[in-house]
Amino acid sequence: MISLSRRLLAEFLGTALLLSTVVGSGIMGVALSDGNDGLALLANAAATAGMLYVLIVLLGPVSGAHFNPLVSLTLRLRGELSSRDLLAYVVVQIVAAGVGVVLAHAMFDLPWLQPGTHARHGGGQWLSEAVASFGLLLTILLGGEHRPKAIPALVASYIFAAYWFTASTSFANPAVTLARALTQTFAGIRPQDVTGFVMAQLLGTALAWIAYRLLSSSATTGAVK
Amino acid sequence: MISLSRRLLAEFLGTALLLSTVVGSGIMGVALSDGNDGLALLANAAATAGMLYVLIVLLGPVSGAHFNPLVSLTLRLRGELSSRDLLAYVVVQIVAAGVGVVLAHAMFDLPWLQPGTHARHGGGQWLSEAVASFGLLLTILLGGEHRPKAIPALVASYIFAAYWFTASTSFANPAVTLARALTQTFAGIRPQDVTGFVMAQLLGTALAWIAYRLLSSSATTGAVK
Amino acid sequence: MISLSRRLLAEFLGTALLLSTVVGSGIMGVALSDGNDGLALLANAAATAGMLYVLIVLLGPVSGAHFNPLVSLTLRLRGELSSRDLLAYVVVQIVAAGVGVVLAHAMFDLPWLQPGTHARHGGGQWLSEAVASFGLLLTILLGGEHRPKAIPALVASYIFAAYWFTASTSFANPAVTLARALTQTFAGIRPQDVTGFVMAQLLGTALAWIAYRLLSSSATTGAVK
Amino acid sequence: MISLSRRLLAEFLGTALLLSTVVGSGIMGVALSDGNDGLALLANAAATAGMLYVLIVLLGPVSGAHFNPLVSLTLRLRGELSSRDLLAYVVVQIVAAGVGVVLAHAMFDLPWLQPGTHARHGGGQWLSEAVASFGLLLTILLGGEHRPKAIPALVASYIFAAYWFTASTSFANPAVTLARALTQTFAGIRPQDVTGFVMAQLLGTALAWIAYRLLSSSATTGAVK
Repeated sequence: MISLSRRLLAEFLGTALLLSTVVGSGIMGVALSDGNDGLALLANAAATAGMLYVLIVLLGPVSGAHFNPLVSLTLRLRGELSSRDLLAYVVVQIVAAGVGVVLAHAMFDLPWLQPGTHARHGGGQWLSEAVASFGLLLTILLGGEHRPKAIPALVASYIFAAYWFTASTSFANPAVTLARALTQTFAGIRPQDVTGFVMAQLLGTALAWIAYRLLSSSATTGAVK
Repeated sequence: MISLSRRLLAEFLGTALLLSTVVGSGIMGVALSDGNDGLALLANAAATAGMLYVLIVLLGPVSGAHFNPLVSLTLRLRGELSSRDLLAYVVVQIVAAGVGVVLAHAMFDLPWLQPGTHARHGGGQWLSEAVASFGLLLTILLGGEHRPKAIPALVASYIFAAYWFTASTSFANPAVTLARALTQTFAGIRPQDVTGFVMAQLLGTALAWIAYRLLSSSATTGAVK
Repeated sequence: MISLSRRLLAEFLGTALLLSTVVGSGIMGVALSDGNDGLALLANAAATAGMLYVLIVLLGPVSGAHFNPLVSLTLRLRGELSSRDLLAYVVVQIVAAGVGVVLAHAMFDLPWLQPGTHARHGGGQWLSEAVASFGLLLTILLGGEHRPKAIPALVASYIFAAYWFTASTSFANPAVTLARALTQTFAGIRPQDVTGFVMAQLLGTALAWIAYRLLSSSATTGAVK
Repeated sequence: MISLSRRLLAEFLGTALLLSTVVGSGIMGVALSDGNDGLALLANAAATAGMLYVLIVLLGPVSGAHFNPLVSLTLRLRGELSSRDLLAYVVVQIVAAGVGVVLAHAMFDLPWLQPGTHARHGGGQWLSEAVASFGLLLTILLGGEHRPKAIPALVASYIFAAYWFTASTSFANPAVTLARALTQTFAGIRPQDVTGFVMAQLLGTALAWIAYRLLSSSATTGAVK
């Protein structure tokens, strides 16, 4: 058993680097793309996917590489994480996500803290976050059952696609959502829009759990017993 | 044996998410790309490929991850699907494709139903659909024989390439073609152009079957016996 | 042993689809990219890489998936192909490459034959083709020794990079070079420039063979014995 | 045991081709992208990633495929390289990197030597190089422990992401930094800015070593003994 402190260090490093990538590649994309936000989002999505693949391979064997309270919560429901560990994971993820945003700002010589001003709310946005989170959790649950070694590539591919097919560009992660309220750059969100996003993400997670129970043979067998 | 209802649920979810991705990423691509359709198609193709890889890994072990009447039909010809199952698969694929388009519209706050206005017909378009379907089915048939675990990556890579090298951007799927007649966005097609596309797709499928029989050692052995 | 006719069919199909992809994605890229050739080349390179990955997985077990006289020639030197088979492979590759170009033109409703007008000659271009071919053959020879199952991904990744880092966009294939003299679109080349390209490609192949002998333990052992 | 001369040849070829790719794809990107540096960086990053994947698969079994003094130094600290070999590796990497830049210039018919004029200095740049090197070394150290066969894909994915999320586009390699001071093209750097970059890279490497010791079970066990 890997000690909790080592697992939390892995969650911290992974979540911080993930957020630095999400925010930093957004800043670079906008800076270089001459007003073409499509190009900025392409770079943003591809860089995020590349980093997710790396971080999950590196840190998965240490902490599980959640980097996301929705994932930790789901594993708690499956009994793979204690309540104490869940709490510790979530706290570390939130703090680390904020640190990652600040690190991105520092690398680009921007003010370290800048409350988000990008409005993201309304039915389409919330539906998008529910769909995005549904897909992410289903990817982790079913992918973990059918091809666990491919989880890093699966999550990376899914997130790349989700940046594009949802209207919200798929935050799908409450710690990420909170942290992105700390930036006024490309990836930002207004603080007052965080709650709606998180509620939608929780709904999507619940739906993913149901779909997983219906689709998985092991889950169903468990339910029947 | 996995129950038919569970397999149909997998086909439903996979086909719906595939169409949401095809249509949604097209909408996002156009919205952000400042009139540069090349960038929109790049995002569209890459997002579709990423999602295909994920959906086939996740749902392949449940339903076979057809999401496409051409695939179900071909497996029926190989005796791997009963006539009843073929019918059920195709109906579910068509319904799910439509639901996926509506879901994309809803996420982007667009009218849910909007009959396609994008004209796609003529010799070059039909030839494109025949070539696109030929390649897709050959990928599935020969890939399934030579490297079955790579099918998700093969189909994703093939479709990415086919978006670009065919003049029709490769629908290669009757359920997808029908559903794309429900949108006026980037990925749409006029309802009256659907029949021509489907005929060409069936022709390409037949040619793929012939090429497969000629190229595959197992297929040829079967034919000689 | 797979019959020669089946192997030639595989070479034919693979080479034709490869050329349809190279030329077709170039046409589509230019048509959609609003004068931005960088975007066209990005689509062109990514589509070619995706198709190469697929074709080598599908057809490698049948014919070796050469699609390139330089590869067939090198395998002849290693004694893995008879002189008769080499001749047959090369003839089929050249014919198929031309057919692939015509197919691309037909899909895009363009004149089927259109002698190339794109000037590509001079020291930088020839050096580029020598470097491109050197890298491609080294990838196939050393990759085949160190990780044969990765050859499809290796060749695809190499060609993607080579489109960009050489000044000629890396033809690296005499059959491809000849066939691209049949198009006036993005991927074309003037007929009178073909000879210089092919000479440079042969030089690069010879250098790759020398580097392989120096780097490979099995090759060196063979040489010492 | 592979002879030192063969290993140095592998380091030479790999480092030279890597630099030709970094510099060449930057030149091509700028030439085609009509002033859109975002597109140039996308091509530059994707080409570099593709080539890194290939070179590490091909040459890893020969020399370890370091191509980077930071990597050689770290392996010296782990006792996997003698001091003599470290010195030889680093000298060859530096020379080869310069040769690769000259080769790129020659392919594009540019002056072979052109001292860099691109200013890259200041806190954000140095922080970026420290972060970039930290991530690269952690990828190699932890990746080598958890999934050694994926090292080529991991390094490629990481570098792609790092081009975008750091403000310096991630040189993360002293030999590369020195060599890029020989070009005035897209990838260049002023000679006087090299020292600051290298210092930051060494700092990032030291931090990666500490993080690796804290995260790795084998490293910790070694420390406790």
